[in-house]
Amino acid sequence: SLTDPSYKLRGDQILKYGVPDRGPDVRYYRNHALTYDQSRKSPIWVAEHLNKEVLTGSANRKHSKFKPDVNIPEMYNAANSDFYKSGWSRGHMAPAGDNKFDQVAMDESFYLSNIVPQDLNNNGQFWNKLEMYTRDLVQTKGYSDVWVVTGPIVRSTIEENGKKFVKYEVIGKNEVPVPTHLYKIILAETGDKQTKLIGAFVVPNQPIQHDHTLRQYQVTLEDLQIWTGINFFPKLDKSTTKNLCDVDQCKLLSREQFELYFIGRKLDSARNISRLEKVWSELDEKNLKPDQFLIELYNRKKSEIDLKEKEE
Amino acid sequence: SLTDPSYKLRGDQILKYGVPDRGPDVRYYRNHALTYDQSRKSPIWVAEHLNKEVLTGSANRKHSKFKPDVNIPEMYNAANSDFYKSGWSRGHMAPAGDNKFDQVAMDESFYLSNIVPQDLNNNGQFWNKLEMYTRDLVQTKGYSDVWVVTGPIVRSTIEENGKKFVKYEVIGKNEVPVPTHLYKIILAETGDKQTKLIGAFVVPNQPIQHDHTLRQYQVTLEDLQIWTGINFFPKLDKSTTKNLCDVDQCKLLSREQFELYFIGRKLDSARNISRLEKVWSELDEKNLKPDQFLIELYNRKKSEIDLKEKEE
Ligand SMILES: [Mg+2]
Ligand SMILES: [Mg+2]
Repeated sequence: SLTDPSYKLRGDQILKYGVPDRGPDVRYYRNHALTYDQSRKSPIWVAEHLNKEVLTGSANRKHSKFKPDVNIPEMYNAANSDFYKSGWSRGHMAPAGDNKFDQVAMDESFYLSNIVPQDLNNNGQFWNKLEMYTRDLVQTKGYSDVWVVTGPIVRSTIEENGKKFVKYEVIGKNEVPVPTHLYKIILAETGDKQTKLIGAFVVPNQPIQHDHTLRQYQVTLEDLQIWTGINFFPKLDKSTTKNLCDVDQCKLLSREQFELYFIGRKLDSARNISRLEKVWSELDEKNLKPDQFLIELYNRKKSEIDLKEKEE
Repeated sequence: SLTDPSYKLRGDQILKYGVPDRGPDVRYYRNHALTYDQSRKSPIWVAEHLNKEVLTGSANRKHSKFKPDVNIPEMYNAANSDFYKSGWSRGHMAPAGDNKFDQVAMDESFYLSNIVPQDLNNNGQFWNKLEMYTRDLVQTKGYSDVWVVTGPIVRSTIEENGKKFVKYEVIGKNEVPVPTHLYKIILAETGDKQTKLIGAFVVPNQPIQHDHTLRQYQVTLEDLQIWTGINFFPKLDKSTTKNLCDVDQCKLLSREQFELYFIGRKLDSARNISRLEKVWSELDEKNLKPDQFLIELYNRKKSEIDLKEKEE
């Protein structure tokens, strides 16, 4: 079999001029790691580890710019121009929002090696809520460590006279493939290491209504490992894990909660009264009722700006 | 950058439960080596080294059977049933015919890890002639060593209202992708190591008429390396190589030569006079003129069989 030494000897003759090089197995960044597909100019899997520390800080995506990964040969890199006017957004696999603790880490999440073409609505809404959910597991639900692996998948989506086909768009000069689905695996662990929860999800790369639940996109880890050809968390004894959605219900924010969250962020970054009032008026436009938190935030910001404008 | 030690430290936390496992980088067999795509259940590249020795012997494909690779976990293996009634043939990447010296090596070339769904005509005709050409470089054209790397590719083939798409069929329970093209890179080296010739070819996975030339499917190695995302022969100083098709013309057998070759093989394995005459009659059916070699082969076999039948 393959471990027979004579095979290796013959192998060295066959590969005298070197093993066909598909790039390093793993690429390490400040706060994520990934494997890159040089032919599809896309990540294959992107791994993260979330804890309170990395989710706290003031790194701001406003200072970050999407750009080709300087660590990847130019001929194997996607380009921003591939995405312009393609109709597809630049979708982070490791989210920018998971890197609050460090601006360099956040900037690195904007390398195109961490990006795939993603439906704009999907990226800004459902998938965004899923990313918020993974952070909530650490910030509000008491799991001290959460590991997340994310990546693109291509599944067969067409059937013509009994035959199955895979069909996907490729964008730009570099013909970057638009994945038919995105996957995300969440491993949540309690501080005492006694409880390990796993959830694997495959989400179509399409607009998704707010009333869709995360559960309806859950798949078994076994199926996902067959579709991706990847054995995830190989050092983890999976028999010791429980189903994340059984223990934690996997509930995403509702549309209202989601909208209120973003209004809160805009209130927080308002620099003057007119901006503050404009954001506050969005509540009526979207017929949303502000909760206690939002009312207090509005009042606090109002008095801060008033004070500041008096001093000027 | 990536070589910063702190990145590796953080990487170890991120990958605490192991690096997502996509299988070994290289799989070594008795007379070929390959990298396997566990998600597409197909080889990515298959490498061979041809010399007079391995091309001489009596190994016979009649004793070999297509079967899943015993070295690959069952969940990541294709199956013969994926191919039955699919309309696609089981196409060797490393050809059976390159393993004449050893029956085990030939048997291993029938592992499905060395197989992709291939158009029946393409497999039996044009691609077969290309495989014969690589052997001729060693057996008749004086190149002592020839390295060959072969594999499937998926290229965009459809354009709809200004958008480009990739579309390919997937067959069987395992949804094995039917590649849109196959690639083959040939590196021919003379005994004195002074001359190194390289040719890279990308052939559509479709029927191909006999009058098509190999040259019309030649591509630059740079382009092929971009499409596959693979740096082939990384240890070879490519500036020392010349274009195979400029030096050797890359001429494949004509339809006549090709047909005569197969009639010769059938004559050679004829066991009795009726079989011999039946094969010989094919010449008229296909209005082929036998050459000197074939006439002598026919006469020799005829007297052999006559003699043998007399002894019985
Ligand atoms: Mg996003
Ligand atoms: Mg073949």
